[in-house]
Amino acid sequence: MSAVVVGHKNPDTDSIVSAIAAADLMSKRGVPSQPFCQGKIPPDTAFVLGSFGFPAPELLGPLAGKKVILVDHSDRGQAPEDLDQAELLGIFDHHKLGDITTSTPLFFWAQPVGCSCTVIKGVYDYYGVEIPRNIAGLMLCAILSDTLIFRSPTTTDEDRKAAKELARLAGVADYEALGMEMFVVKSAVTGVPARELLFRDYKDFTMNGQKVGVSQLEVVDIKLLDGVRADLRQAMTEAKAEGRHTIMLLLTDIMKEGSELLVLSDDANLAEKVFGAAATDTTYSSGNKNKGVWLPGVMSRKKDVVPKLEAVFK
Amino acid sequence: MSAVVVGHKNPDTDSIVSAIAAADLMSKRGVPSQPFCQGKIPPDTAFVLGSFGFPAPELLGPLAGKKVILVDHSDRGQAPEDLDQAELLGIFDHHKLGDITTSTPLFFWAQPVGCSCTVIKGVYDYYGVEIPRNIAGLMLCAILSDTLIFRSPTTTDEDRKAAKELARLAGVADYEALGMEMFVVKSAVTGVPARELLFRDYKDFTMNGQKVGVSQLEVVDIKLLDGVRADLRQAMTEAKAEGRHTIMLLLTDIMKEGSELLVLSDDANLAEKVFGAAATDTTYSSGNKNKGVWLPGVMSRKKDVVPKLEAVFK
Repeated sequence: MSAVVVGHKNPDTDSIVSAIAAADLMSKRGVPSQPFCQGKIPPDTAFVLGSFGFPAPELLGPLAGKKVILVDHSDRGQAPEDLDQAELLGIFDHHKLGDITTSTPLFFWAQPVGCSCTVIKGVYDYYGVEIPRNIAGLMLCAILSDTLIFRSPTTTDEDRKAAKELARLAGVADYEALGMEMFVVKSAVTGVPARELLFRDYKDFTMNGQKVGVSQLEVVDIKLLDGVRADLRQAMTEAKAEGRHTIMLLLTDIMKEGSELLVLSDDANLAEKVFGAAATDTTYSSGNKNKGVWLPGVMSRKKDVVPKLEAVFK
Repeated sequence: MSAVVVGHKNPDTDSIVSAIAAADLMSKRGVPSQPFCQGKIPPDTAFVLGSFGFPAPELLGPLAGKKVILVDHSDRGQAPEDLDQAELLGIFDHHKLGDITTSTPLFFWAQPVGCSCTVIKGVYDYYGVEIPRNIAGLMLCAILSDTLIFRSPTTTDEDRKAAKELARLAGVADYEALGMEMFVVKSAVTGVPARELLFRDYKDFTMNGQKVGVSQLEVVDIKLLDGVRADLRQAMTEAKAEGRHTIMLLLTDIMKEGSELLVLSDDANLAEKVFGAAATDTTYSSGNKNKGVWLPGVMSRKKDVVPKLEAVFK
């Protein structure tokens, strides 16, 4: 029976591609493995899979009695609900260390880099396993996606180096152009239900006993969101009413290199506590009361938002 | 300010040596680091340090405001009490995944192998960093110690391969002989207070809310323990009275490849539940009522005992 390789809930390109790459690597290392996903494939990920001729991984079924490998997360909130009924063989990740525990030793490959695929690229190299041309292409796109084409503060030299080598393996000459093409697909939000947009790249955290949701939409031009902002506000109100203390949405403009912040919270001063005086600046929102505040340089949920949020909730 | 590198409480050779090796590796990777220990250096570790001309690491002080790297554990019970006041940069380990979490990404190098030094050897190789001759000697001894000279069921091909390469780097021709010499030192228990013996290689676990302690003494001949068994029983009684549900002591004979099990527990049938009918066999203990039951092949707390204990407590 193959081991199951799966990324986090609300999958993104890195989570889907890391599952595909890790399953390839593990299979070649003697652990037959198959990639799965925990939810709907987002449009930009579908574009990436299509570009390199890959089918979408199947939706994950029950884990009971199976061997499992997790990619791109190490916390229970992001993992399959029935994880405890499986045997966890290992984890590939690039996030903070989560609350998953095991009763037997496992492998854990994690680095503080911009993308899980950068970590997996390193493990391919460590074991001297060749990366197939089309998997290299997928991994390249995952790095471009997670690092916002190297504009995110989470980007490291390892990510740039891995992307360069993967582009060579995949035969991609202009990978910045490929990245822009992918983000243009990601930016096409018209006609998509607001709730789906809100939960597309969404994570719930438990902070000091409170449920705190942080969502992020990354677009090539924030003006593309003008038509959906009011509906996103409404979707946030509904999501908050489902038992959350706080719900934050980052509307990230990857060209302007900053994010507009929308917040609903039981704590009316939360944004100011997290981002300081900048988050109370109303000049930006004066023209449109649905607009939030503009936070220059805030690009990364993981680096720019979650640690500060956790510090405030502590 | 240097980063602090430290192993688990009640340090053993792997924990001390891994801290030394990881501090060397991290320093050479651009993170100035210094090894520390969380407790008294055991005699066999002192022998190993002396053999390769190394001073014992200093005892760990307060961590507040420091950067820290953990080796040989990933659970809070084994970590410094004030870990949360430090910034955790990363972990090198070979145990089950523990309950330590972080708020920022970290590196995590773990493999299901017999010794943390086998993992660290791999990371030296990954980054192409040369292992100094004397650190190679220490790491070789750590592998011999943790794998009971390759007799423990936790031993993997990676451990054997790493030991061979480290022996070459250290200029050690007969490393089995070196291992035996180390275990003879470890077996010298006469005159050591029983409580010190009990806590020398001791770990407390929280299982289903209960405090469960498992201790192990590894000797080259179990007869060497005949004179201290009654005192060990007494020390176990005292340790149990300090709020533990269960206390187990494995007296492991590395030549006979098995362990004598001594148990004190609120659950009178615990040993049978964990080890089956074998654990109720009284023939072995008929001559000496201080003796426990002999469990052939049981060599490893991590592999042969803790997972079974956890399954019973679940």
